[in-house]
Amino acid sequence: MYSFNNDYSEGAHPKILEAMIQANLIQNGGYGLDDHCSHARELIREEIGQIDSDIHFITGGTQTNLITIAAALRPWQAVISTDKGHINVHETGAIEATGHKVIAMPSNDGKLTPADILKALEDHTTEHMVQPKMVYISNSTEIGTQYTKAELESLHHICRQKDLYLFLDGARLGSALTSPINDVTISDIAKLTDAFYIGGTKNGALFGEALIILHKDLKQDLRFLIKQRGAMMAKGWLLGIQFEELFQNNLFYDLAAHANEMATLLRDGISSCGFSFYSDSMTNQLFPIFPDKLIEKLEKDFLFSIQERFDNNHSAIRLVTSWATKEEACREFIKTLKDNIQE
Amino acid sequence: MYSFNNDYSEGAHPKILEAMIQANLIQNGGYGLDDHCSHARELIREEIGQIDSDIHFITGGTQTNLITIAAALRPWQAVISTDKGHINVHETGAIEATGHKVIAMPSNDGKLTPADILKALEDHTTEHMVQPKMVYISNSTEIGTQYTKAELESLHHICRQKDLYLFLDGARLGSALTSPINDVTISDIAKLTDAFYIGGTKNGALFGEALIILHKDLKQDLRFLIKQRGAMMAKGWLLGIQFEELFQNNLFYDLAAHANEMATLLRDGISSCGFSFYSDSMTNQLFPIFPDKLIEKLEKDFLFSIQERFDNNHSAIRLVTSWATKEEACREFIKTLKDNIQE
Amino acid sequence: MYSFNNDYSEGAHPKILEAMIQANLIQNGGYGLDDHCSHARELIREEIGQIDSDIHFITGGTQTNLITIAAALRPWQAVISTDKGHINVHETGAIEATGHKVIAMPSNDGKLTPADILKALEDHTTEHMVQPKMVYISNSTEIGTQYTKAELESLHHICRQKDLYLFLDGARLGSALTSPINDVTISDIAKLTDAFYIGGTKNGALFGEALIILHKDLKQDLRFLIKQRGAMMAKGWLLGIQFEELFQNNLFYDLAAHANEMATLLRDGISSCGFSFYSDSMTNQLFPIFPDKLIEKLEKDFLFSIQERFDNNHSAIRLVTSWATKEEACREFIKTLKDNIQE
Amino acid sequence: MYSFNNDYSEGAHPKILEAMIQANLIQNGGYGLDDHCSHARELIREEIGQIDSDIHFITGGTQTNLITIAAALRPWQAVISTDKGHINVHETGAIEATGHKVIAMPSNDGKLTPADILKALEDHTTEHMVQPKMVYISNSTEIGTQYTKAELESLHHICRQKDLYLFLDGARLGSALTSPINDVTISDIAKLTDAFYIGGTKNGALFGEALIILHKDLKQDLRFLIKQRGAMMAKGWLLGIQFEELFQNNLFYDLAAHANEMATLLRDGISSCGFSFYSDSMTNQLFPIFPDKLIEKLEKDFLFSIQERFDNNHSAIRLVTSWATKEEACREFIKTLKDNIQE
Repeated sequence: MYSFNNDYSEGAHPKILEAMIQANLIQNGGYGLDDHCSHARELIREEIGQIDSDIHFITGGTQTNLITIAAALRPWQAVISTDKGHINVHETGAIEATGHKVIAMPSNDGKLTPADILKALEDHTTEHMVQPKMVYISNSTEIGTQYTKAELESLHHICRQKDLYLFLDGARLGSALTSPINDVTISDIAKLTDAFYIGGTKNGALFGEALIILHKDLKQDLRFLIKQRGAMMAKGWLLGIQFEELFQNNLFYDLAAHANEMATLLRDGISSCGFSFYSDSMTNQLFPIFPDKLIEKLEKDFLFSIQERFDNNHSAIRLVTSWATKEEACREFIKTLKDNIQE
Repeated sequence: MYSFNNDYSEGAHPKILEAMIQANLIQNGGYGLDDHCSHARELIREEIGQIDSDIHFITGGTQTNLITIAAALRPWQAVISTDKGHINVHETGAIEATGHKVIAMPSNDGKLTPADILKALEDHTTEHMVQPKMVYISNSTEIGTQYTKAELESLHHICRQKDLYLFLDGARLGSALTSPINDVTISDIAKLTDAFYIGGTKNGALFGEALIILHKDLKQDLRFLIKQRGAMMAKGWLLGIQFEELFQNNLFYDLAAHANEMATLLRDGISSCGFSFYSDSMTNQLFPIFPDKLIEKLEKDFLFSIQERFDNNHSAIRLVTSWATKEEACREFIKTLKDNIQE
Repeated sequence: MYSFNNDYSEGAHPKILEAMIQANLIQNGGYGLDDHCSHARELIREEIGQIDSDIHFITGGTQTNLITIAAALRPWQAVISTDKGHINVHETGAIEATGHKVIAMPSNDGKLTPADILKALEDHTTEHMVQPKMVYISNSTEIGTQYTKAELESLHHICRQKDLYLFLDGARLGSALTSPINDVTISDIAKLTDAFYIGGTKNGALFGEALIILHKDLKQDLRFLIKQRGAMMAKGWLLGIQFEELFQNNLFYDLAAHANEMATLLRDGISSCGFSFYSDSMTNQLFPIFPDKLIEKLEKDFLFSIQERFDNNHSAIRLVTSWATKEEACREFIKTLKDNIQE
Repeated sequence: MYSFNNDYSEGAHPKILEAMIQANLIQNGGYGLDDHCSHARELIREEIGQIDSDIHFITGGTQTNLITIAAALRPWQAVISTDKGHINVHETGAIEATGHKVIAMPSNDGKLTPADILKALEDHTTEHMVQPKMVYISNSTEIGTQYTKAELESLHHICRQKDLYLFLDGARLGSALTSPINDVTISDIAKLTDAFYIGGTKNGALFGEALIILHKDLKQDLRFLIKQRGAMMAKGWLLGIQFEELFQNNLFYDLAAHANEMATLLRDGISSCGFSFYSDSMTNQLFPIFPDKLIEKLEKDFLFSIQERFDNNHSAIRLVTSWATKEEACREFIKTLKDNIQE
C-alpha cells in the first residue's frame, strides 16, 4: 500500500547514500569537527551569502528547535508562535521542558503576522508575566502555506523594532523555496532572520538539519548546549557528507522541486474533481476535504493521515509528497479518487 | 489616597498579629515541625473533614502552585487551565519553568467546564503531544466568579473518569465560601479535589497559604520538593500561628465575609448608577465598566487598576476589597462616583 | 529544654516586631514597590557604599541562592563551591533543579581558595564538560569559619582574571563581620563580590534576606525571575520594614555581636574543660568534639545536633547561638558540662 | 596519520551498511514503529532472555542516559555514579539539565561498589538533601575496567535492598562482554539491572544505542519523553536495521572481539617494553603511561589523546581500538614505540 503519510518514509537519495558509502572506512574526527562538516559549512555559507554565520549539523528538528530557543532565552523569557506551530503542538512540550513558555497566537493559515506579535507584546507587559523575546515561524508552515518576501520583511522589521529574535524552522524549507508561488531566496532568509534551519530529513537526507546562526548573541558556546542535549553526533561527518551532497549541483532544490511537482499532480487532480482544500498549499503537503465515505475507500489503497474533521460527514486528510514520491503513485491516487466518485 | 488595588495592602488582622507577638520569644523547632503547625493542621483537618490529608504551610501562592503541579506531573505531562488562570498569565511562566506546559482553554467567565477538559483531551492524543494529567481551577476565579457545588461535582466526575488530578487554587477561597450565592462548603472542596490550598495572604494573614493534599499519590516526599524550591520557611511556626488563629473562632470566614460585604456596598452603589460589570462577581473583586473620563476622575481619589479596555471610550477597572477595607472608604467611593456623573 | 539547635528558634527582635506592628494597618503597594523597601534599600546602599547596587528582599536563603545562580548562568554553565557549601549539601538540589551543576571542591575548613578555583577550571576544559562561570562562597562558612580580607581579595582577583562571577552567601554575614578576628567590612564585600546577600532570618528578623547585585550583567530583569520562582512577596513591605530596623542604629551588628559573645562564653567554657573543636570557629556556630557518653548526658538538658562522628566513641556536635540566646543558658550549659565530666 | 583516538572514527560495518542500502527505497512507518525495529526488538529480547522488556532505539548515548535517568527520578531525587562516570564528567551537565544531581563517589578503578552506595545513602538522610534513587554504572567503564558477575550481583542486591534503580551504561558493552576476563552474559545483565543500554555507535553501527527497560516503573509512557527530548528519530527504521544486523549471526560480539584483540596486540607490545598502565583494562581502551618525550614522538605518527598527567615527565595516554582497527596499524604502533625507545 503506497504511503502519502509523510516525506520521510524512504531513506536517502542515492547520491547521498553513495557518498556515505565512499567515505565509510575513512577515519574522521568526531563531533562535527571534520573536513566534511567544514566543507558543507562553506557550501552553505556561500549559498546563503553569510560568510560569518555559524552552522551546526543536528540529527533532528525537535532538538534543533529546543536548542536554538533555549540558547536565545533567559529563564523568564518566552517564544511567540502560531497555535499551529510545531513547537506548540507536536514536540511533546520540548520547549516547556527547557523552562520556557510558548505564547501561541491563533492563526488560520499557519502564518504569523506583525499584528500577532504586537498583540503578544501588548498581552505581556509586566514582570508578573513572561517576557516575549523570540519569534518562531515555519516555512513552509505546518499546513503547507508559505511566507512571501514582503511578509518576512515585515516580520524582520517588527522583530528589530521590538528587540525580538526571529527564528525560522526550515524543516520543509526546500519545498517552500521551490514552490511555484515562492518569491524568497535562501539568502533573503539569511538576511531577514537571526537563526534558521535547513531541513535535510524531509528532503532526501537519511537524517539531519543544518542550523544557521546569524545573530552574534546566539553564537556563544552553542556547542556546549548541543552536547548537553545529546545532539552532538559522535560520527558527525555523516551529517557533513549529506549536506555536502545536498548543496553541490543543486540537489537540495531538485529534490524539493520534485516533491512539489508530485504535489501539483495530486492538487490538480483533486481540484479537477471539484474538491476544496483546508489550506492554500503550493508545497508538498496537501489537505483536501473529502466525504468520510470516500476517505474510507481511499484508505484501502493508500496510507495518509486525517488532519481534522470538517463537518459531520467530511474531513480534511493530509497527503505528503517527497523527493522519493513516484509519479505513478500520484496518478494511481487520482485514478482511484475518480473511480470512487464516479460510482 | 485610598487603595482598592488589591486585598494585600495591609498587614495582618490584629488577633493574628497578637498571637505572633505572644509567641515571639518562645523557642520553636524549624521548618514547620513545631506545635503551632501541628495544631493548625489539626484545626484544618477537622474543618475540612479529612483526617488523613497532608497539610503544608507555604509563604505564597505562586510557590504553592508550582510545587503542587511539579509534584503531580511526569516530565511530559501538562496541566489544563483556563486562559485566564493565574498560572497561565500571572506567574511569569512559573509552571513552564518546572518543565510543564499549561494547556490554556478559552473561558469568558473564568471558569473551566467538563467540555473544556474533554476538548483538551481530544486535542492531545499522541506521544507527539504533551499528556494532560492535572486540571487547575481557581475559586473564586481570577475575575471574581465562583463555582457551584454542581459544577465542582461535574469537574470531579470528569477528572476521575479521565484519570486527571483536580487542583483548586484557593488564594481567594474565603471570599468564594462566604459569597451570598455560595453553595459549597470547604469539606465539599476537600471531597471533590485531589489538592487545594486555603489562601491566608489575601484574607488577613501577614502571609501564608495552607496546601492540602488529599490524593495519596501527591503526598510522597513533598517536603523534599518544598525545600528544593525554597518554600520551607525556617521559622515555619509563624505560618502555623496564623492558621491557628484563622481557624479558631471562625476568623477565616468572618474576615472574608467582611470583604464581601464591602464589595456588595460598592457593587450596589455602582449598579444603582446604571453601570454594568465585566464579570458577574459576588466576591471581593469587582470589574465595573466606566467611561474613561470618569475613570480619570476617580483616579484622583482612589487607587485601582485597569483590567481591560472595553471599547473606544470605556474600560473595565478592578476594585478589590479585603478584611481591612473600611466602610467609609466604600461609601466615599460611591459618593465620588455619583458626584462625578451628576456633573 | 533549651535549644542551641540553630539561630532561628525565636521570632524577631522586639524593635523589628514593634515596627511591623506600627505599620500594620497602613496601606502599602505590593511586591516590594513601597516606601519601606525603598528606604531600606537606601540605608543598605549607604552602608555598603555602592549607590548603584540593585537590592532585592527575599524571604529565604535557598530562594536567594537559586535565583542569583540561575540568573548568572547560561544553561551549560556551572557554579564552583566547596563540598560543604550550603548549595551543594543542604538545599535538596535546588541549584541542579535550575539545570546547573555544582562543582564541589573538597575543603577541610569550609573555605574556597584560588587553588580550588584553578583546579576546577583545569578539570573543565572542553565543550563535553560544564563551563564554570560563578564562584559561590559563604561567610561565615557552613562550619563557622570566616574569610579574611586578604582571602576575599585573592578570590576577587582570580575571578576577575578568569571571568567568573563571585557570589557570597551571607546567611550568617553578621556573625562573620562582628567576629573578634574579623578584618572585613561590608563595603569590602560589596567591592570584592559581584553579588552577595545579607541574612536577616538568622540575625533577628522574622524572615528575609537582602540580595545585593553589584555586577551589571546580573541586574537585568531580575524581578521577573524572582516572581517566577515565587520569591516576590505580596506584602513586600514586611521585608522592607525589617531591614530598615536592622540598618538603623547599628541593630544588625549589635544582634550579631551578641550571638558571638554568647558563642565565646560557650567556646571558652568548653576549651577550659580540655575539649577540642571540629573547626576553628570564632562565629556563632561551634563544633566541639565530645565523648558520646557525655553527649547523651547533655542531650537530657539541651537541644543541639550531631555534626559528624569523629571516632568510635567521639562525635562533633553543633551548638548555635543567636541574637536571642540567653547568657544564663550558656552558663548553664557549661555548668552541666563540668558536672558531667567531674563524675 | 592513523587514529587511536576513539572507536567511532569510521562509519558502519559493511554488512550493516549493505542492509541500509537494500532497504533504502522501501517505505517504512516513522518514529520506530516499523518492522525492522520490531524484528530488532525481538532479536534482542531473545538474546537477553527478557521477553517482557521494553526496547527503544536512540541515536546517541548522552540522550539515552538523560532520558532514562529523567524518567526514573522524581524532581528531588538524584543518581549515584563514580566521579569518573560519563554522566558526571563528559556530558556537559546533561543530567543536571534535567534537574537532577549526580552524586559522584570517588573511584580509582572506575567501578562503583556497594560500599560507595551505602556511603552515598549515609550522606543523604534528610529532606534538606537530595534523595538517591538510581545507581548509574558503565560496563566497560570510562577507563576500560569491567565488572565481574559477582560485583554486578552485589550491586543488584544492595539496590534491591535500598529500593534503588540500577542502570548500566553499555556504550562499550560489547567490549566488556568479549573481554578475555569477562564472566558476565548479556542475560545476566538483563537479570541484574533495571535498565541498560547496548551501544551500537562504538561497535560497528553508524549510530544508535538500544535502551532496554526491565523495571515496569520505568516503562510508562517513555516514548513521550523520548520524543520530547528530540530522541525519536523520524526514520527510526535506520536504527532497527542496524540492530537487526548486529544481533544476527553474532556480529555484535564478533566486532567487539576484534576490537579487544587489537587492544591485546597493543597491550602486550607496550607491556613487553616495560611500560605500565593507568588502569587494568582488558577491553578496547588502554591507558599506558609514557615519558612525555616519547609521547611527542608517537604523536608524529599516531592520533591519540592524553588522559592525565602522571608525574613531572610522564603522562597516561588513551589508545582506543575498534571493530575497524587494522592489525597493521597496531603492529606499526608497537614498532614505532620500540624504535623510539631504542634510540
